[in-house]
Amino acid sequence: MIKKKTYNIAIVGLGNIGINLYRHLKNNKKNISKKNNINFNIKYVSAKNRFKKRELVIPKNKWLKNYLDASKKRDIDIVIELIGGSDGAAKKLVFNSLKNKKHVVTANKALISKYGNELSVLAEKKSVNLEFEAAVAGGIPIIRAIKEGLVTNKINKIYGILNGTSNYILSKMSGFNQNFKDVLDSAKKLGYAEKNPKTDLNGDDVKSKIQILSSLAFQCFTNKSNITVEGIQAIDHVDIHNAKVLGYKIKHLAIAELKKNRLIQRVHPCMIKKDSYISNINGVLNAVIIEGDPIGKFTLQGEGAGPGPTTSALVSDICSILRGNIKFPFSIPHKSRKKIKSNDISNEYFSSYIRLDVIDKTGVLSSITKILSKHKISVKRLIQNPFKSKKFASIIIISHKSKNLNLVKSIVELGRKNFLINKPKFFRIENI
Amino acid sequence: MIKKKTYNIAIVGLGNIGINLYRHLKNNKKNISKKNNINFNIKYVSAKNRFKKRELVIPKNKWLKNYLDASKKRDIDIVIELIGGSDGAAKKLVFNSLKNKKHVVTANKALISKYGNELSVLAEKKSVNLEFEAAVAGGIPIIRAIKEGLVTNKINKIYGILNGTSNYILSKMSGFNQNFKDVLDSAKKLGYAEKNPKTDLNGDDVKSKIQILSSLAFQCFTNKSNITVEGIQAIDHVDIHNAKVLGYKIKHLAIAELKKNRLIQRVHPCMIKKDSYISNINGVLNAVIIEGDPIGKFTLQGEGAGPGPTTSALVSDICSILRGNIKFPFSIPHKSRKKIKSNDISNEYFSSYIRLDVIDKTGVLSSITKILSKHKISVKRLIQNPFKSKKFASIIIISHKSKNLNLVKSIVELGRKNFLINKPKFFRIENI
Repeated sequence: MIKKKTYNIAIVGLGNIGINLYRHLKNNKKNISKKNNINFNIKYVSAKNRFKKRELVIPKNKWLKNYLDASKKRDIDIVIELIGGSDGAAKKLVFNSLKNKKHVVTANKALISKYGNELSVLAEKKSVNLEFEAAVAGGIPIIRAIKEGLVTNKINKIYGILNGTSNYILSKMSGFNQNFKDVLDSAKKLGYAEKNPKTDLNGDDVKSKIQILSSLAFQCFTNKSNITVEGIQAIDHVDIHNAKVLGYKIKHLAIAELKKNRLIQRVHPCMIKKDSYISNINGVLNAVIIEGDPIGKFTLQGEGAGPGPTTSALVSDICSILRGNIKFPFSIPHKSRKKIKSNDISNEYFSSYIRLDVIDKTGVLSSITKILSKHKISVKRLIQNPFKSKKFASIIIISHKSKNLNLVKSIVELGRKNFLINKPKFFRIENI
Repeated sequence: MIKKKTYNIAIVGLGNIGINLYRHLKNNKKNISKKNNINFNIKYVSAKNRFKKRELVIPKNKWLKNYLDASKKRDIDIVIELIGGSDGAAKKLVFNSLKNKKHVVTANKALISKYGNELSVLAEKKSVNLEFEAAVAGGIPIIRAIKEGLVTNKINKIYGILNGTSNYILSKMSGFNQNFKDVLDSAKKLGYAEKNPKTDLNGDDVKSKIQILSSLAFQCFTNKSNITVEGIQAIDHVDIHNAKVLGYKIKHLAIAELKKNRLIQRVHPCMIKKDSYISNINGVLNAVIIEGDPIGKFTLQGEGAGPGPTTSALVSDICSILRGNIKFPFSIPHKSRKKIKSNDISNEYFSSYIRLDVIDKTGVLSSITKILSKHKISVKRLIQNPFKSKKFASIIIISHKSKNLNLVKSIVELGRKNFLINKPKFFRIENI
């Protein structure tokens, strides 16, 4: 096999991930070169603050004057973007790098889910790679699996747990019967939650990830409309306890599927049977399940984030470029990508769990069941437990499968009743 | 991107898998060509019996006169070997095809585990691909994952369930408390076991697979010595029942790991805690778990065999060739592959389950414990249950961690005692 020229790499962004990647590439240079039959070199780096104290010393001659030089300098072949954020510097760097025929590797899910369509057109036009394995479920090579291992499968459904922070919090709340705030505080201390974990908790992070996965799985353009996104902030340990008693666990899932040629994407907490596979994915683990033909059901499970798994993903992308592998960022040429129309979940049917904390007085139960009946929601199970104080009661309702639209309407209507002492709680029950 | 010439494919072997592959390639030609930016063509086929009744009609002009022509004809680029068996026709075809600069795709684990070292040298010398994703755990793209997704990881341990037939049998025995023979018979009827399932049951099939996986994971030559291989034929439903009572399940595992730079490979039934992940892989499913750095623990799960999953794997290999990806069959050049010395498990320590069916008379227990003590095996738990007839008793012993050599010696010695009415039963307990 013929030895090619040396590939020069620029790493832009030197936080935890960037530093870990730099060290890993340096320490494993020989092995990586050998496996790909080509040499490479970390030629340049760039960071917002060059003089910040870092774990390792980077030689002066490697520092770029301006981060955008990474997209311009003729002696750079591969740009690794680790700045983050869907716009601003990251966007500028990636667009310019591709324009100037540089291969790009990024861990930036927000950028790819927002601009992936345009970026892939550009990458194809310039015949360079745009790789983003690290953007979804770091330690799980899910993007490579869809693009290569499952290349010939027709995928109908892809779903799973895609955020380590929120899964850690739910697992701890369930394991120790602690409330949300206490678990979040300890997660921050242990490094399992960022200082500002907003996008991890409200579902936005997972939304970007499932958008990327569904565009790959269903060979369509990234579809940004009609996605239901609900986070985990409102989950109460009372509901986690109730779920247990009823034989369920509460998990935060992302689900994308094709139904009658319509794409349905949703991100929300679900109650799942407690002995199911996905109920037992705990802590910071991620899991992705694919239903495809001819492969059947296929599952991947691993650590979703952190410097180790993310570095593993970034290096797999770099190696793919070093080997000259895959040119289509989204598996097929953009001209062949489909525009699949999406539906929101209004007309989907869900069995559900509803909890209503009410004043314990005559007529309440009748009023509740009247509202449910009006919205065509039939009750499968109803449990009323008195509060210790006896003035109040908690009513748990498990509904039969009902239209999402009607479920939401009835929750809104119930929420307005002044016999309610708290906001109603509502979780869809998922049979997976 | 520049369109290259059309690749011509020859499929040799047209059993279930071959026919399924032929149909799939034909029906998905457009999509596969598009994804890989190159055209392909099933130019030739060959089978032992050309005139056997098949589900589909293959045009006359596609049939080779002699299967070995696939390795010779100048208008063939890729040879798909689906003959099977480590020697004979399959070996001849694959060696000759590589020699004549044809890319080879095979599902033949016996061939790869036996001749993979020589074949990879040949493939590298001739600059062609030798691909065998379908040889291990069909529906799980494990080989591609190790070679690409986890390319930069240092793997220390790889293990899992690698045979769908034996896992199906153990799951059914456990679920329905049926004996081995009855479950095997029904498995044959349902198509989950072959007419002659010998290599599936005695561990030989799994042995080939773990040899291939460990050579990939540890970047070493396939190591054929010192492998412990035990099958599932001797597993009794009594032990499956006892395992349940004690909080375990019996699973047939393959385990390969590096310990102090020595390779240890073993294939045998294990008792595993019943709530562990791997205990809950049931039916024909396979699962592979990898412990690597920096990725941590990574798990893949899917259907292990059958025409669908195998076709998925074969096509992923074909696509890899169509894209011009990966040239080293075992991830690194053969010159860089290590010769790792292996240890057998004699000096490994295992906790274990021993069942002895004995004549219920004075002195028996004392004789048993004396033998165990002589071999330095200390008892963690001992349960004696009388048989219904009362003349006999079943003694179950859970041992503390003891040297395998000593465990085996004591089992042999116990087996010779004439107070035993059946062969002793012995299972290692694995904490995974």
